[in-house]
Amino acid sequence: MEPQFTPLIDSLPSTVPFVGPEALERKRNRPFRARLGANENGFGPAPSVIAAMQENAAEAWKYADPENFDLKRALAVHLGVAPGNVVVGEGVDMLLGLAVRQYVREGTPVVTSLGAYPTFNFHVAGFGGRLATVPYRDDREDLDGLLAAVKREQAPLVYFSNPDNPMGTWWEAAEIERFINALPKETMLVLDEAYGETAPATALPPVDISRPNVLRMRTFSKAYGLAGMRCGYAIGAEKQIGAFDKIRNHFGMNKLTQIAALAALKDQPYLKNVIARIIAGRERIAQIAAQNGLQAIASATNFVTIDCGRDGPYALAVLNALIDRDVFVRKPMAPVLDRCIRVSVGLDEELDYFAQQLPEALAAVK
Amino acid sequence: MEPQFTPLIDSLPSTVPFVGPEALERKRNRPFRARLGANENGFGPAPSVIAAMQENAAEAWKYADPENFDLKRALAVHLGVAPGNVVVGEGVDMLLGLAVRQYVREGTPVVTSLGAYPTFNFHVAGFGGRLATVPYRDDREDLDGLLAAVKREQAPLVYFSNPDNPMGTWWEAAEIERFINALPKETMLVLDEAYGETAPATALPPVDISRPNVLRMRTFSKAYGLAGMRCGYAIGAEKQIGAFDKIRNHFGMNKLTQIAALAALKDQPYLKNVIARIIAGRERIAQIAAQNGLQAIASATNFVTIDCGRDGPYALAVLNALIDRDVFVRKPMAPVLDRCIRVSVGLDEELDYFAQQLPEALAAVK
Repeated sequence: MEPQFTPLIDSLPSTVPFVGPEALERKRNRPFRARLGANENGFGPAPSVIAAMQENAAEAWKYADPENFDLKRALAVHLGVAPGNVVVGEGVDMLLGLAVRQYVREGTPVVTSLGAYPTFNFHVAGFGGRLATVPYRDDREDLDGLLAAVKREQAPLVYFSNPDNPMGTWWEAAEIERFINALPKETMLVLDEAYGETAPATALPPVDISRPNVLRMRTFSKAYGLAGMRCGYAIGAEKQIGAFDKIRNHFGMNKLTQIAALAALKDQPYLKNVIARIIAGRERIAQIAAQNGLQAIASATNFVTIDCGRDGPYALAVLNALIDRDVFVRKPMAPVLDRCIRVSVGLDEELDYFAQQLPEALAAVK
Repeated sequence: MEPQFTPLIDSLPSTVPFVGPEALERKRNRPFRARLGANENGFGPAPSVIAAMQENAAEAWKYADPENFDLKRALAVHLGVAPGNVVVGEGVDMLLGLAVRQYVREGTPVVTSLGAYPTFNFHVAGFGGRLATVPYRDDREDLDGLLAAVKREQAPLVYFSNPDNPMGTWWEAAEIERFINALPKETMLVLDEAYGETAPATALPPVDISRPNVLRMRTFSKAYGLAGMRCGYAIGAEKQIGAFDKIRNHFGMNKLTQIAALAALKDQPYLKNVIARIIAGRERIAQIAAQNGLQAIASATNFVTIDCGRDGPYALAVLNALIDRDVFVRKPMAPVLDRCIRVSVGLDEELDYFAQQLPEALAAVK
């Protein structure tokens, strides 16, 4: 005899949403020369943020304020809402898990796009939900298809990312508002805007906290360059935001992360500068693709998805050839999308290296 | 209409395990002069750890290795086990939540001591478990009582901390091994050793990863002085440790935390030095208590629980009088234990200030 897991836990597979680049480096026994696979932001956090972390490193013995009071207040001011409309968590990944837990139990149908964020799916599976997936249409998440699936399944939860990961595509705000208006009022929309800062302003609907069925999620991991510090936040109606307090890990936030996020939020000039560099990097990646006869898909994120022009196994071979050449990239896995590889914007020297290796990788695959 | 929470979420109260000192400071509109309430370690992390964080602050744009490979390997070497016997998480609080989720569903009986760690209880409630509590006996968790409750309830999960929080008391290893041997093999014991480093070596059973029904939890928050960085770990049999991978937030660890924890583990001379200072601090607190006619309970932790000699309301009044005098302390809340206040070891100047304020607080309460 030994302790018995719950039937749900017992039924879960031992899969992980992503393999980290460090695991690949250990397997290859060689470091990558270009780290362009995880949609990190190689420009890094602002010098003001790095300084704030360094100056406060000795404070690491203190638990962080469990209410995230200062950070929530600053975010609320930034967004033009009240602190009660914001919940801060250890990255969007954590907040997605908490959101799923609030609306999903065993057998609950949950709608998402086929090939969208695997970590959301991981949480749905982890709480026993049943995923109903909708294929992308023309490399975008299919808003009409998602809506139809929600209605068909009577799903209490639907996930939609704008801009989209892994394709980088986006919808304009008016389309999203139309989707929200058409959504059943009892269905919660998780609108993942992790890449919101790098999108055209026209892609983001105004923040509207009067809707109890929309949770918008944003992060310091992407444009702010703080993926390693784990800080995301959700914006919504007060009751729905307040419910996170019933189950979140109140002392889960990192003290230095609170300090870093506050400093990052204050340094909007740096953010603007980084966004300009990200946009330039996207153009560069698109050029590199074109120089190799490949088509880049227009992107509103900090990465560019490149259509390799053939099928999934071919794109996988290109990906592996790049990895063999010390370029860390990833790729979409769902059918049709899987003809692509996904390249994060990186430093100039990393993109130089990618530009140098891509033709060789393509030649090797031929 | 609005989105409906699951019935379980709907049923949960909006309580939090602890109010942070920052919330009290905001309420008082005045900072504390002695931060002695959260069992933090005011001696802080090692200079080598602070330096490692500072040197790597600019790396914060990278996600941490989701496998925690280097840290797990270092912990495994330190503990004399294999990496597969260790899971790293964002503090013991997080690992407790994951452990509860693995063994508890709605209605599952879970055994703990009445007045033991509230965050464990928070997680049990959060997953719908039913707490069966056992009163302390002579200010120690009652091993015989816990065992009887496990058998009576046929509980798949029991929580026991050694040394104990909030009383600071402990059992010797031989007693704990007797308890483990008597435990039904299908009952998982979470043995919380958050204060293990400050306990006498005789209080810690040898690490034995052959037992599938024991999960031992340890942390960098206490003796290592890294509460704000959120890093704990659990040690156990490979299958039970591996199950955490099914549900943990794989990219939840902070990059700087991995670096800090590795550096802290390497700097064992600093740890020894801090432990000596903690032991001296415990003696100092006991002296201060005695000078005021109060009895300190012998402690194996980084705090000392002081018997105020009367009932719960009296001890609460003492606590509030200390808080009024800018001394942040906490107290046990369960009957009988609630006659006490709990004072964390702090810097000499903080204990000086406590020594100065305690007589005034007692006088004010008289």
